[in-house]
Amino acid sequence: MEFTATQIAEYLHGTVEGDATVKVHDFAKIEEGEAGKLSFLSNPKYEQYLYTSKASIVLVNNDFTPQQPLNTTIIRVENAYESLAALLTLVQKYAVRKTGISTNAHISTSATIGENAYIAPFVYIGENTVIGKNAQIHAHCTIEDNVKIGDNFTSYANVTINDDIQIGNNCILHAGVVIGGDGFGFAPSEDGSYNKIPQTGNVIIEDNVEVGSNSTIDRATLGSTIIRSGVKIDNLVQIAHNVEIGENTVMAAQTGIAGSTKIGKHCVFAGQVGVAGHINIADGTIFGAQSGVPNSVKLPNQILMGYPAIAVGNFRRSTVVYKNLPELQRTVYELEKKIETEKK
Amino acid sequence: MEFTATQIAEYLHGTVEGDATVKVHDFAKIEEGEAGKLSFLSNPKYEQYLYTSKASIVLVNNDFTPQQPLNTTIIRVENAYESLAALLTLVQKYAVRKTGISTNAHISTSATIGENAYIAPFVYIGENTVIGKNAQIHAHCTIEDNVKIGDNFTSYANVTINDDIQIGNNCILHAGVVIGGDGFGFAPSEDGSYNKIPQTGNVIIEDNVEVGSNSTIDRATLGSTIIRSGVKIDNLVQIAHNVEIGENTVMAAQTGIAGSTKIGKHCVFAGQVGVAGHINIADGTIFGAQSGVPNSVKLPNQILMGYPAIAVGNFRRSTVVYKNLPELQRTVYELEKKIETEKK
Amino acid sequence: MEFTATQIAEYLHGTVEGDATVKVHDFAKIEEGEAGKLSFLSNPKYEQYLYTSKASIVLVNNDFTPQQPLNTTIIRVENAYESLAALLTLVQKYAVRKTGISTNAHISTSATIGENAYIAPFVYIGENTVIGKNAQIHAHCTIEDNVKIGDNFTSYANVTINDDIQIGNNCILHAGVVIGGDGFGFAPSEDGSYNKIPQTGNVIIEDNVEVGSNSTIDRATLGSTIIRSGVKIDNLVQIAHNVEIGENTVMAAQTGIAGSTKIGKHCVFAGQVGVAGHINIADGTIFGAQSGVPNSVKLPNQILMGYPAIAVGNFRRSTVVYKNLPELQRTVYELEKKIETEKK
Repeated sequence: MEFTATQIAEYLHGTVEGDATVKVHDFAKIEEGEAGKLSFLSNPKYEQYLYTSKASIVLVNNDFTPQQPLNTTIIRVENAYESLAALLTLVQKYAVRKTGISTNAHISTSATIGENAYIAPFVYIGENTVIGKNAQIHAHCTIEDNVKIGDNFTSYANVTINDDIQIGNNCILHAGVVIGGDGFGFAPSEDGSYNKIPQTGNVIIEDNVEVGSNSTIDRATLGSTIIRSGVKIDNLVQIAHNVEIGENTVMAAQTGIAGSTKIGKHCVFAGQVGVAGHINIADGTIFGAQSGVPNSVKLPNQILMGYPAIAVGNFRRSTVVYKNLPELQRTVYELEKKIETEKK
Repeated sequence: MEFTATQIAEYLHGTVEGDATVKVHDFAKIEEGEAGKLSFLSNPKYEQYLYTSKASIVLVNNDFTPQQPLNTTIIRVENAYESLAALLTLVQKYAVRKTGISTNAHISTSATIGENAYIAPFVYIGENTVIGKNAQIHAHCTIEDNVKIGDNFTSYANVTINDDIQIGNNCILHAGVVIGGDGFGFAPSEDGSYNKIPQTGNVIIEDNVEVGSNSTIDRATLGSTIIRSGVKIDNLVQIAHNVEIGENTVMAAQTGIAGSTKIGKHCVFAGQVGVAGHINIADGTIFGAQSGVPNSVKLPNQILMGYPAIAVGNFRRSTVVYKNLPELQRTVYELEKKIETEKK
Repeated sequence: MEFTATQIAEYLHGTVEGDATVKVHDFAKIEEGEAGKLSFLSNPKYEQYLYTSKASIVLVNNDFTPQQPLNTTIIRVENAYESLAALLTLVQKYAVRKTGISTNAHISTSATIGENAYIAPFVYIGENTVIGKNAQIHAHCTIEDNVKIGDNFTSYANVTINDDIQIGNNCILHAGVVIGGDGFGFAPSEDGSYNKIPQTGNVIIEDNVEVGSNSTIDRATLGSTIIRSGVKIDNLVQIAHNVEIGENTVMAAQTGIAGSTKIGKHCVFAGQVGVAGHINIADGTIFGAQSGVPNSVKLPNQILMGYPAIAVGNFRRSTVVYKNLPELQRTVYELEKKIETEKK
């Protein structure tokens, strides 16, 4: 299907500059634009590509001022990235969706699957498990006993959901995710060995949560590990037992949250952040990549970074000095000598 | 089933304070306690909840002194956390256990499975593999050829155990674990490309080892990667080829040990620790979270932290100064100027 | 099969010192050498074992000078590690290879599998997927629709390859790898929630690429995430959407590369390195373990380390001072006092 710049601008409540009749049928990155394709400019780092892009249409932010003449039609919108997302989402809605329950799946007789499901071959669904409508469950997923899952659930291949887990509506689990493995709980004995503490709690995942490939969310020792509505978790992230993550918090890849820690709403974790156990992180906290967080963060909406994490401006200034530490030390020693010499 | 405080205290060799006839039938976290539930207080951070908890019984340590009046029955024990573990373990013993070998599993005719096994649908067991009694193997596990596994083995879903691996008694592998992937070994050629070095060794896991979800333990180039008895490994941990981990060492999530490193007994690794290859870590070493360990640790029982890891007290003191580095630098420069000025 | 030292030296273009008629039939690590086994000495750390090794033959580098008398036959070669690799590779070539397509696999009628394939039970292969000759696909792999894979492909168990992925010749994916999960892309809405940005691009993996267990490579938002020829990726590594990794770059375990970053050729990443999004890393860059890389690296062939990463020599010198920061601070304060006192 093809659309003109005018049609797209109308859908996006944007304004066209250039040839409003030009048509596009696909998307492309700005540096790989071609005739018939629509691209976007959001991150200013990529502005250079706009002036040479062969894309027929480029979405730009309303406040964008070109520094050079343009060879392409642009559509000005409030937020180019969001508008791209809106178009991609629109296209995806019309994509063909798999349906049907494979006769090669194992579905316990006591399980209930809602209407309009796609259940791939080799899916395993345990006893008394209930799944809502429009589920898309890919090959080799294991959903064990007494699991409750809402509507519009998507699980890519090789996902494991252990007993008693609860998942809300509109959730997406990417391939290899494990929900409800045992929390890491052991009591030391006198001989130096460890006794396993049975992990008898569960995991509750609310609505609109997405979890990236091969991430792991452990079940609670007692009670629940809780992932609130709208949380987005990237790949290879570890959420330990009894953690609670507040609404609309996002966590980039390889972040780890230790046991019983409570994370606020609207927090942002860059990649490879580590947070200690049994602490609280205030709403709106932003952690820079690889931050190490040993203590609670009480004041909301701070930007922290470092190992251990401190205010990001502070971290940046200290890293500058860090590079010069040997010189600083030398200066101090020389001052010391000078003073000693003067005294004599 | 219900038990009275008296019955529980007797089992735990503890002493009751309060209503010894009160009955419980389930467990709860202290902050979520309800009538009929038993809770525990181990970490002092949670003491505040004790005074308002609605749990009928709370386990506390013998040396605990309440700071406020109690509305709940307490049972004093040597170690509240261990006693909780003992009760949870007791309850778990009576849980119904799955049994039976699915006709939808693929079990090679040359494989041997001990008595009383549960083998889920879609399990794959290769040639000449031998598994002891009481195995619990969940859906989509792949156990390749010539694997030897002891008694009481539990493998959650989607686990991979490659050829020639040896696993002892009472081991638990959580979902998505990979045992025996190739070690990361390549020899550089003159043209800048790399030639794969076949990884012909195996992995030996001794008794009572638990490995967390999606962790990976690589096979040796030659010889064996060895995980000694009682080792507990959390989620998303990486153990490289030819590593050896000593008895009863515990490793929290996202820790990585590089090739050919030998870790001592009774070590504790907090999360996201990284250890270089070809080094030795002494018995009883404790590493703080996110530590980076470039060199051998020869003295046992040290607590180390940092990047690179140093004595933890040293690390803490240095991080305090780190925050103030710009101020320190400014002070030094001002001193320098003063001295210059005075000289003139 | 047994070979004499003479035969092996001939194959490796090496020279024998000691008994040229001694025979070996297997390999062993130098510290575990036994009669009839061949070992090697490459890392000087292991030299001590050479003098007591019971291995019948040890490969050593041409420039090696023994410090003690030898009880074993040595074969001098250009590069002992590469020669070992050559021998292991030779042996592996003669190993028996599985073949045959299991009737328990699900292969879509529109899929094409090349000759001489091994397809294990419970493999899922989707619509219009094309796989070259000599494929080895282990149990529980999911290869979704419209995937193109070249010749000599090996996929260990529980691997997921999502729709539209392209993979070249001679690639190896270890167990649990996920190729083509959605990139982590969300647009924030005004109410603080996030809207998913459909990830409509794919992943292109060129020839001779190896990816370690449970690593994840996300599909692009638009266009492709690209892994160039000869790239070697270790376990639990995260490659985000729209990343490009240059030829023959190697990445050790638990490294993470954020979105849209372009990594050069012949780079080396030690373990647990993190690289920010939307930056460029020059060819030949080497990063020490746990490095954090916030900005582009423009000059090629540098060795960098630290958080944030700086020249490795600089990092090492600064870490030495870091340990002594409290002392340095005290010295500065004392100097300050002295100067104040002198003034009076």
